[in-house]
Amino acid sequence: MYKLYYFPSNANVAPHILLEEIGAPYELVLIDRTKGAHKEAAYLQLNPGGVIPTLIDGELVLTESAAICWYLAEQHPQAGLVGAVGSADRAHALRWLMYLTNTLQAEILHYYYPTRLGGDDTVTADALKSRAEARISGMLTILDNQLVTSHGPYLLGEKFCVADAFLFMLCRWTRNMAKPARDYPQLATFVQTMVARPSVIRAMTQEGVATPWV
Amino acid sequence: MYKLYYFPSNANVAPHILLEEIGAPYELVLIDRTKGAHKEAAYLQLNPGGVIPTLIDGELVLTESAAICWYLAEQHPQAGLVGAVGSADRAHALRWLMYLTNTLQAEILHYYYPTRLGGDDTVTADALKSRAEARISGMLTILDNQLVTSHGPYLLGEKFCVADAFLFMLCRWTRNMAKPARDYPQLATFVQTMVARPSVIRAMTQEGVATPWV
Repeated sequence: MYKLYYFPSNANVAPHILLEEIGAPYELVLIDRTKGAHKEAAYLQLNPGGVIPTLIDGELVLTESAAICWYLAEQHPQAGLVGAVGSADRAHALRWLMYLTNTLQAEILHYYYPTRLGGDDTVTADALKSRAEARISGMLTILDNQLVTSHGPYLLGEKFCVADAFLFMLCRWTRNMAKPARDYPQLATFVQTMVARPSVIRAMTQEGVATPWV
Repeated sequence: MYKLYYFPSNANVAPHILLEEIGAPYELVLIDRTKGAHKEAAYLQLNPGGVIPTLIDGELVLTESAAICWYLAEQHPQAGLVGAVGSADRAHALRWLMYLTNTLQAEILHYYYPTRLGGDDTVTADALKSRAEARISGMLTILDNQLVTSHGPYLLGEKFCVADAFLFMLCRWTRNMAKPARDYPQLATFVQTMVARPSVIRAMTQEGVATPWV
């Protein structure tokens, strides 16, 4: 039976609706964020970002609301929530899901939590940039920890997966920060492994990107 | 043959690496953003957000770097970029891809473009909130236009898909803004359709969310 960690009207709403669409049995577990339960050690072990929701499916612990939505849709093809692999409908559903999570959802969080961006005082663009850099450090630490958990050199371990290409691109984008991705111990190994990969060498060379790439 | 619209070192890097991993034939098309080519009408028709990259695969026009990555991985199972449906590896690859695009990538954009958040002057948290709301209006307009294109009531047309649950959740989150989602003509129909859907009624009721839901 699925278990969905939730708080009313949080990012659990979309997976919750899909569980109802599917008609699969599930249990809701309240994470009382008014009491800080989402930042307690027990929950952080399931969800290192301390965000809601988390889905449990047997041994699998899955975070990221949009990933949970896609996972549920794929697991239950009879519910018709995604088209077959290779169909245009499936590609477009994914495209809108990505847009919703990385653009609209990200922006709505700024509306609700503007002080996370700028603090309580007035800020300059330079200060906004520095504060972004500080938050990026926290994210790179989460990713570095994942490479410890997976034993590296890739996000899921020895096997290169689709997310590693995306991680490499973002690591490159941090290259001029005070503490770039290459200065984190596991991410250092990751980017060294990636820049030796023939696909990366060909892509970066074709784009005419000057070295060092990260 | 795939066609990938790109600019050196932009968000095309990840799909580009994956095209090389797969070994499928593809063509690169430069969108010269130094000359504003990403904001020209011809490109906006392919990519309404005016962002890079876009992938063309026959009749399919696909945007969103992370969606393109996942699409390519699914289309070429022999490349081993994602595990089989139902495997934990597949779920975790998706989870990290979502985290990278909606959290780390979104934050890195703030580092590079802090004036998009706050303008050139010093700003208060209230101003950051207002500016977020203005950007959200542009996003809701893109989504409203998609509902015109699809002929509604859902993102892909008559058939409810996984992304609609996510869209409903985010529409709700705009409910106290000056121009909430329900005030856009097509989104109005969308949310009215959604609140009558049994899955939505059950999920919102279970979470104890007071009406009106959007």
